[in-house]
Amino acid sequence: MPATPYLRIDLARLRHNIAAAADLTGPAGVALRPHVKTHKSVEVARLQVAAGAVGISVATVGEAETFARHGFDDVFIAYPLWLDDVSAGRLTDLAGDARVAIGVDSVEGAANAGRLLGSTTAEVLVEVDSGHHRSGVAPQDAGTVAAAAARTGLGVRGVFTFPGHSYAPGALASAAADESRALGAAADSLRAAGLEPRVVSGGSTPSLAHSDLSTLNELRPGVYVFGDAQQWELGAMDPGSIALVCCTTVVSHAGGRLVLDAGSKVLGADRPAYASGFGRLPEHPDARVVMLSEHHAVVDLAGAPLPPLGARVDVVPNHVCNAVNLVGTVYAEESGELRPWPVAARGLNS
Amino acid sequence: MPATPYLRIDLARLRHNIAAAADLTGPAGVALRPHVKTHKSVEVARLQVAAGAVGISVATVGEAETFARHGFDDVFIAYPLWLDDVSAGRLTDLAGDARVAIGVDSVEGAANAGRLLGSTTAEVLVEVDSGHHRSGVAPQDAGTVAAAAARTGLGVRGVFTFPGHSYAPGALASAAADESRALGAAADSLRAAGLEPRVVSGGSTPSLAHSDLSTLNELRPGVYVFGDAQQWELGAMDPGSIALVCCTTVVSHAGGRLVLDAGSKVLGADRPAYASGFGRLPEHPDARVVMLSEHHAVVDLAGAPLPPLGARVDVVPNHVCNAVNLVGTVYAEESGELRPWPVAARGLNS
Repeated sequence: MPATPYLRIDLARLRHNIAAAADLTGPAGVALRPHVKTHKSVEVARLQVAAGAVGISVATVGEAETFARHGFDDVFIAYPLWLDDVSAGRLTDLAGDARVAIGVDSVEGAANAGRLLGSTTAEVLVEVDSGHHRSGVAPQDAGTVAAAAARTGLGVRGVFTFPGHSYAPGALASAAADESRALGAAADSLRAAGLEPRVVSGGSTPSLAHSDLSTLNELRPGVYVFGDAQQWELGAMDPGSIALVCCTTVVSHAGGRLVLDAGSKVLGADRPAYASGFGRLPEHPDARVVMLSEHHAVVDLAGAPLPPLGARVDVVPNHVCNAVNLVGTVYAEESGELRPWPVAARGLNS
Repeated sequence: MPATPYLRIDLARLRHNIAAAADLTGPAGVALRPHVKTHKSVEVARLQVAAGAVGISVATVGEAETFARHGFDDVFIAYPLWLDDVSAGRLTDLAGDARVAIGVDSVEGAANAGRLLGSTTAEVLVEVDSGHHRSGVAPQDAGTVAAAAARTGLGVRGVFTFPGHSYAPGALASAAADESRALGAAADSLRAAGLEPRVVSGGSTPSLAHSDLSTLNELRPGVYVFGDAQQWELGAMDPGSIALVCCTTVVSHAGGRLVLDAGSKVLGADRPAYASGFGRLPEHPDARVVMLSEHHAVVDLAGAPLPPLGARVDVVPNHVCNAVNLVGTVYAEESGELRPWPVAARGLNS
């Protein structure tokens, strides 16, 4: 048994979540290109591809390199990269091992990529803002960006968005509707510029079940494989389907509260405004993690008896992508056996 | 030049901050035992010891092992460890290389440590709650815990607290006053139990300048070496003394805002209620990081002209301890040269 705190995957639930996403997309003829930034794990990505994923989405060149080295040969870097000579060289090398696509969200970014990349190195997808207001052009401007890319000789694959405003209570379906409208308008904008959007790509875990599969032909969810306390509290995933927990030890009963040996250095410090705390306890659904520091989680058990000092308690992190990125190894459990799985792309931010 | 995002240390400022803490403690005859969880770096710890630190504080056995391996021979694990056979064996091995002390905050924890450790393996310090309400016993109960440890044969070194409630606007001096009162009462409680508290230990970066050096004889600040946006916004450190930034690249101007290629996977997701955003920009003090996701920081520049796509922009993380723990290497800059320093104890949560 590893020392606490460690991250444990319930392999049966993981397989179930992977199958459910395949069942949603496959029969509808929609491509599933899961975002592997959630798990950064070759083992998990292999399960996704075995279940029918057409390829993977990543956030950084480093993630792309890691997965390509392990045989994943169809990689979309779903990020508006600003390339320089070094990163362009890395993409050129990568293109020897995998079919590569990158995101662009500006005329300048498209021109810069076209200047630095050979026309066969990578295709581009134009990122559009569907309401999250992070990166991405307005849908009606997608054609202009796509045309700028095409003028440099880059192949234009299509359009994509991340409807991240689905991460709000009650916004799951409305964010999916925004996604559909934005991607539809962006696709029209490409066509008006004389370019056919072969791929119309969206997806986030909260909006997944509401995705408009008549407009989108590719989905890129990430968190759905594991789930986390955010998905639980948004109502996007059932607590019974959450496949990753942090196993902790009770170290203190100070002040009549439960203090666990897991903090922000293993759970992550994420705490969105809608969250009820810094994570959830599957065996104590009424409990709240009221304080989190680097190596302490202070839990209010809502009057329930405190588990004894030294007891093991599971915690579901708020944001599983950041939790997994904090460890070198996750432990996959099946039939009581724990298998160490490396977090192969841990910390690869560039 | 490393690819962005990367963490860069201003070595001159680092040296200045280390010297300032030595100047505060040395002449007052107070021991400085800096908490190395902030930097997890052998190079930084060596500068601290060279400036007079009596030893180091750590949060986990793994951190202790890493620094002991590099020659640090006086280590306090400032945490109420709940030991088992494995961690007790690790402490026993550690005691071959270093003088070791651990925290306890319960009679049960003291008895458990006494059962598993030889009497010469480690001394204990009793943790007391001075107002942060995380771990630690009430000051008047410190003697009871100390006596329980002493009955098992463990040496009792003294008492310690972390006045973490200093992390609130306007609370710097009042938290230091609480710390002084709590440690004074705890020391009295030990004496009433017939035990002399040789060490009375406190300290946090926000409360540091207000520490009562007539009551405390040891300080354990961590963040002061680098500073961060929390210290800046609390008024605990001047922005001009902040010694660590994340160097980022502008990747998008979506929506007329600045989008940088650094997110929660390099800055950390910390965002205390009092913070104005998810970090600060030293060259744009009026700017606010209004949104942070894993690889995007969205910045509102308060009407200032946007730096161009591809430009480099520095960001001060909110909580430097969590930022450093996200990377394998930090880059120390002096006279324009960057030296890679490993984050030797990265991710060692147990």
